[in-house]
Amino acid sequence: MRILTFAGSLRAGSFNRKLLNVAVETLRSRADIDLLDLREVAMPLYDGDLEEKEGLPEGARRFKARIAAADAILIATPEYNNSVPGPLKNAIDWASRPPDNPFKGKVVLLMGASPGQFGAVRGVLAVRLILTALSAIVIPQMGLIPRADQAFDEAGALKDPKSRNQVEKACAELLRVAAALTAPGPEAPR
Amino acid sequence: MRILTFAGSLRAGSFNRKLLNVAVETLRSRADIDLLDLREVAMPLYDGDLEEKEGLPEGARRFKARIAAADAILIATPEYNNSVPGPLKNAIDWASRPPDNPFKGKVVLLMGASPGQFGAVRGVLAVRLILTALSAIVIPQMGLIPRADQAFDEAGALKDPKSRNQVEKACAELLRVAAALTAPGPEAPR
Amino acid sequence: MRILTFAGSLRAGSFNRKLLNVAVETLRSRADIDLLDLREVAMPLYDGDLEEKEGLPEGARRFKARIAAADAILIATPEYNNSVPGPLKNAIDWASRPPDNPFKGKVVLLMGASPGQFGAVRGVLAVRLILTALSAIVIPQMGLIPRADQAFDEAGALKDPKSRNQVEKACAELLRVAAALTAPGPEAPR
Amino acid sequence: MRILTFAGSLRAGSFNRKLLNVAVETLRSRADIDLLDLREVAMPLYDGDLEEKEGLPEGARRFKARIAAADAILIATPEYNNSVPGPLKNAIDWASRPPDNPFKGKVVLLMGASPGQFGAVRGVLAVRLILTALSAIVIPQMGLIPRADQAFDEAGALKDPKSRNQVEKACAELLRVAAALTAPGPEAPR
Repeated sequence: MRILTFAGSLRAGSFNRKLLNVAVETLRSRADIDLLDLREVAMPLYDGDLEEKEGLPEGARRFKARIAAADAILIATPEYNNSVPGPLKNAIDWASRPPDNPFKGKVVLLMGASPGQFGAVRGVLAVRLILTALSAIVIPQMGLIPRADQAFDEAGALKDPKSRNQVEKACAELLRVAAALTAPGPEAPR
Repeated sequence: MRILTFAGSLRAGSFNRKLLNVAVETLRSRADIDLLDLREVAMPLYDGDLEEKEGLPEGARRFKARIAAADAILIATPEYNNSVPGPLKNAIDWASRPPDNPFKGKVVLLMGASPGQFGAVRGVLAVRLILTALSAIVIPQMGLIPRADQAFDEAGALKDPKSRNQVEKACAELLRVAAALTAPGPEAPR
Repeated sequence: MRILTFAGSLRAGSFNRKLLNVAVETLRSRADIDLLDLREVAMPLYDGDLEEKEGLPEGARRFKARIAAADAILIATPEYNNSVPGPLKNAIDWASRPPDNPFKGKVVLLMGASPGQFGAVRGVLAVRLILTALSAIVIPQMGLIPRADQAFDEAGALKDPKSRNQVEKACAELLRVAAALTAPGPEAPR
Repeated sequence: MRILTFAGSLRAGSFNRKLLNVAVETLRSRADIDLLDLREVAMPLYDGDLEEKEGLPEGARRFKARIAAADAILIATPEYNNSVPGPLKNAIDWASRPPDNPFKGKVVLLMGASPGQFGAVRGVLAVRLILTALSAIVIPQMGLIPRADQAFDEAGALKDPKSRNQVEKACAELLRVAAALTAPGPEAPR
């Protein structure tokens, strides 16, 4: 089981990198983790003319390959203006371009942290709809951390046991669903 | 594999009953079908005071039991005012009341037919979010039939081969995901 | 200026009735308030066959008339399963049936209270999309009250000054937009 | 009355530029049109670290100024993966950064063209929610052009009279609402 994980923002100190790290710790003993930083696969703003002239940019090709190599995906994302961050959407848009849709059939877990009271719930909702449009299976469980500026201790752990439990359960469900859907079987051949 | 199927509208001649029938024909040889008519489980408008005084109405209890007995669910629904039909939402709301949430973990396929050009796409989207909130696993595939008043022949079949194919593929995917997630296995115990 | 106001749930002791009362106090000196209880306009579940046979039910006709008589509308609604309550959607669906769409052009303010941390934000979002589909002008301001079980004092006032301020500002904006759009003028004749 | 207009994609030959041009022709005699090409205000992907180090990029500052100078905004946008295009979201995200929110109170009309059957309806919906979050007043009317690859004649006009009528009515409503809300008056002082 290989899980691609990344945060939806570019900022080095982002709350969602912290949240991602918490989840990755939970997953590490049970799966191979590919920890991606979106800055590693930098790409220009999507422009159909650019694509026609130059094809997919290097960053987009590498992002597509990382997605394709994974069985499952974990994204921790902020919300910008109650929706998907522009840079995350731009990366997804490039990754969805031909020749293939690497998101198809991937099992996805979404998390979100924000300093506000709503914990990125609307941003996560937007990303859910986008990845569903790309035929990913986004599981219903989420990890939502409101008031993220006060949510982590100095070691990077979540202070609130309920939040820790929510993240752990969501990760366990990601593993369960991804394992079931990638297992060979008489009724679920791939 | 047992699949509960129902249309989201009460009208006897609804396009979504027709669409449901097409999908049920596809599924019948590979699963036990529980074909429900929402009028069989008639229930009053949800009212917390009524619930407190009288408990769950008979129709809601029977609806909950039908959901609980299924491994997967297929819903074909119209959209009313770009969203979930009131009667369907009311039934889901009652079904979600304690002591249990029967939708939890169910694999769900959504379809929608409408006489308009958008094929109930926004109604189906609303139902997706609602059932996801109830921890159902709503697969990304859909069956959307725009211009439903012209879509069926006299025998009730879909005239357009592309639409037929879309419905068949979505049904196959429902079976695949539901089979994988309900199968016993070392990594996916239930 | 006449404002129709109602809560989205039927329960007598609902938090949203309390929230509605707070807003109505704010509005009362500056507008005529029509305070509706959805139970006054009780109607059956929407069923196209019933409509064809018997026409609009009495409750729906009265609901349509109350909407039509208003310049603006204030709704305070809970969320059920992250979306519009079934009974509220059912009432809106009936009200949208021919011969007219009474929501068209009405200026609407949405509020929501819930005992959870998200303050009905997703329910209010669903209602926004539904009323927008019906050509109402739903202003962007909202009044969202999370943890509603602890939000009101014994006199029914909101304890938190920030929440009070949010409600007051949203009401003022409703009045501003509705007044501007209903005023006669060379560029905005009605 | 000054209206800022732009298409949501960067591609020179985009259907949405064509759609925008149709709408601009309708509006030109009744308003000052600021016709923006998003490529004129090119900006990097939003990155909080970059913002902290260098402030707003030149393109973002110019985009903010163009928005601030307008009374109303018209956007014609494609949908990418059923949602807002990444580059459009990125531009909105930068524009929403302090010191000010230039979208606040602006009256907005959204249009969308796509080669598919759904006419960008879900992309327009996403943009509606984003601009509403920024306190813009997005009017309910829309201009949606499905099968956009066949929708325009050689002179750039919409072939279908119904589509033309929809665009004209939506533009007229934008003018009506914007005029009413920007007019000085006893009840709507600004």
